[in-house]
Amino acid sequence: MAGGLFRRLVGAAGEVWPTYTRHEFVLRLARGDLPEAAFRRYLVQDYLFLLHFARAWGLAVYKSDTLAEMRRAQSLVAATLDVEIGLHVEYCRGWGLTEATMAAEPEAPETIAYTRFVLDRGLAGDRLDLEVALAPCMIGYGDIAAERMADPATRHDGNPYREWLDMYAGAEYQSLAREAAAALDEQFARRGGEGRFAALAAAFATATRLEADFWRMGLEAER
Amino acid sequence: MAGGLFRRLVGAAGEVWPTYTRHEFVLRLARGDLPEAAFRRYLVQDYLFLLHFARAWGLAVYKSDTLAEMRRAQSLVAATLDVEIGLHVEYCRGWGLTEATMAAEPEAPETIAYTRFVLDRGLAGDRLDLEVALAPCMIGYGDIAAERMADPATRHDGNPYREWLDMYAGAEYQSLAREAAAALDEQFARRGGEGRFAALAAAFATATRLEADFWRMGLEAER
Amino acid sequence: MAGGLFRRLVGAAGEVWPTYTRHEFVLRLARGDLPEAAFRRYLVQDYLFLLHFARAWGLAVYKSDTLAEMRRAQSLVAATLDVEIGLHVEYCRGWGLTEATMAAEPEAPETIAYTRFVLDRGLAGDRLDLEVALAPCMIGYGDIAAERMADPATRHDGNPYREWLDMYAGAEYQSLAREAAAALDEQFARRGGEGRFAALAAAFATATRLEADFWRMGLEAER
Amino acid sequence: MAGGLFRRLVGAAGEVWPTYTRHEFVLRLARGDLPEAAFRRYLVQDYLFLLHFARAWGLAVYKSDTLAEMRRAQSLVAATLDVEIGLHVEYCRGWGLTEATMAAEPEAPETIAYTRFVLDRGLAGDRLDLEVALAPCMIGYGDIAAERMADPATRHDGNPYREWLDMYAGAEYQSLAREAAAALDEQFARRGGEGRFAALAAAFATATRLEADFWRMGLEAER
Repeated sequence: MAGGLFRRLVGAAGEVWPTYTRHEFVLRLARGDLPEAAFRRYLVQDYLFLLHFARAWGLAVYKSDTLAEMRRAQSLVAATLDVEIGLHVEYCRGWGLTEATMAAEPEAPETIAYTRFVLDRGLAGDRLDLEVALAPCMIGYGDIAAERMADPATRHDGNPYREWLDMYAGAEYQSLAREAAAALDEQFARRGGEGRFAALAAAFATATRLEADFWRMGLEAER
Repeated sequence: MAGGLFRRLVGAAGEVWPTYTRHEFVLRLARGDLPEAAFRRYLVQDYLFLLHFARAWGLAVYKSDTLAEMRRAQSLVAATLDVEIGLHVEYCRGWGLTEATMAAEPEAPETIAYTRFVLDRGLAGDRLDLEVALAPCMIGYGDIAAERMADPATRHDGNPYREWLDMYAGAEYQSLAREAAAALDEQFARRGGEGRFAALAAAFATATRLEADFWRMGLEAER
Repeated sequence: MAGGLFRRLVGAAGEVWPTYTRHEFVLRLARGDLPEAAFRRYLVQDYLFLLHFARAWGLAVYKSDTLAEMRRAQSLVAATLDVEIGLHVEYCRGWGLTEATMAAEPEAPETIAYTRFVLDRGLAGDRLDLEVALAPCMIGYGDIAAERMADPATRHDGNPYREWLDMYAGAEYQSLAREAAAALDEQFARRGGEGRFAALAAAFATATRLEADFWRMGLEAER
Repeated sequence: MAGGLFRRLVGAAGEVWPTYTRHEFVLRLARGDLPEAAFRRYLVQDYLFLLHFARAWGLAVYKSDTLAEMRRAQSLVAATLDVEIGLHVEYCRGWGLTEATMAAEPEAPETIAYTRFVLDRGLAGDRLDLEVALAPCMIGYGDIAAERMADPATRHDGNPYREWLDMYAGAEYQSLAREAAAALDEQFARRGGEGRFAALAAAFATATRLEADFWRMGLEAER
């Protein structure tokens, strides 16, 4: 089954997974009643997050065993630096946030915790450790958006956050998430084995907890 | 002046520094009215912290340019793994905490944020970057304990946390902190230059903020 | 002066530098009487080298402090993986070498020594350490080709290696080499200081020696 | 079987293994007719090697998943820095080599190739990758000395290199080598799986080739 390792990691995470994917931040975003301050806080920290996401894929280029692995990692660095950050900056402009403002903002502890945890897993372990720590974000965002799109409670017309849902539920992102899940399976076959599962599952659960903290950090902006 | 770089980093951190060194957690610990639950929470997370502290000094062995640098890093790994963790475990036993309990506890996000920030600075930069990120802990704890010892508001007799203050204000730890400050100066002369100061100061301030979050995490245990 | 640090490093390397840049391999290539077996050996190992060169720039993405630094590193990963390896493979086809043949060839010890030395400098030190270790290759190839082009002893018509000289002496590569030299200056100002010069010069000289060994390895193929 | 992974790696290396373990350098050392210049060259480069060996075990501390793993790595850093380098320096003094002389000698390309290959495997991969790349040295030296001790052609009385053979064939080193082999098995069970074997075997064979080059470098000193 494609995405087999990812599904097993989700299963092993138990309640930690829906605590992240069905977080109040996500549900309110889908219903359109998320406070704007919460979303703005999230957007700024997500900009800072993207810089470290690009660093993580740069590290994956270094940690590649084959030319094909290098090319996949390089395409993700390129997509982040050449496309995604640009789109994010443009999207944020619509929310009244300039790139200079976002770049000057201090990183929230929640942003530091998740990004540096990922990078440490990647440096202490191998590329599979790195990609497993990135999976709650890379693959999880695709799952989150797809699940909300299928939910009748989700508001489409007049939802100020609709563009966000459309992007992550869209064909392009869903395909990228499927590729990330397939890459996990390929690496687990080539570099893994059942003996590794427990440690990978523990890192995946921690990364998921830290992603849930990231939503909470957004919500707390409204206070 | 010995410790010149450290004092400049403290100066550049402005209000961030006393927010950490005179944190409510510290002041109450010195007065002896810190809730026990807060201290226990701190002790458990400090145990988990020490494992990553040892990893950081292991990394410093790898990042050494000279045999003398390697030996200093190795002595700190040894002190942590052979002595400090043992003392910590013994001390915690007096507080009703077993090593197995502490090892089984999940890392708090605040523990993850500070430790992984340090490791990432060390891997992305050089050994000076690593030691600057460790300085709020290594040197800061010495400063904190010395300052509290000199404060008339500090309670000595019957203070349940007296042993903690005595250890960090004691000659052995103060000497270790002085060595760490001298090492910063030596490395700044050999690998630094004024051009690096701004980036080092920014990393130092972030590390200090994350250390203050660590105290707050302790305090929140009482809720 | 643009390229100031690079020129100082070359100066400090003394005789090591011309031993590399005016190596018998280079002089015979320019005169057109390099044995074809030597050039083929070089081409195969240069293909294997490029894989680690891409890894080094992936590492530089990870080690970047700013978005601009990340983008420059990413453009070099992309240039290597998307363009240079492709051109190299096509060029080698003209010499009767397929990509599969080259990929199956074991790395020569000389290829391992230079590439892993660079990567270790980059991981043990910071991005300036990494770029200084790459400079004999990045900037040196531009110097070598320009010097040979200006040499009356160089044969242009009917030289089987003319395309190689034209590429590295060409405007595109020369501009890339100038950018690399400017990047060294910028990083030396921002992360360096005179205190670092001696260690950087030692690493540069070692890297240059290892590059000269790479030419020798090519020449030895004719035996 | 204890040491099962190591034996499989040796088997997969085929002729590469005896090319290293029964290298002319080793056979002549055992017979006592190795030129002294060759042994001195080896001793100097082995001193430089030990510095990077200590760095590799420092890196292993960083890459540890458990306290037990950290402690084993730390004991090897300590053994190298506190004991082995000291013994080596003392032993070399008997051969007329001072520590200052050895520290001032440039690293041979063969020393660079092997040590940096090991460190890169350790950083690009996980701790199992690191220990597999170290195994031809760590475990191989034990095998080499034991095999020579069992060989009737080995000269014991009046062999100027007897101390070297005695040390690596001795109970202390043999026990260290057995522990290293057991650690490989433990990590292969916990972090490995059959899928990894091919890549581990390729890295082991390359590391073994580079160790054989190290002997050759010694022999070439007599020229």
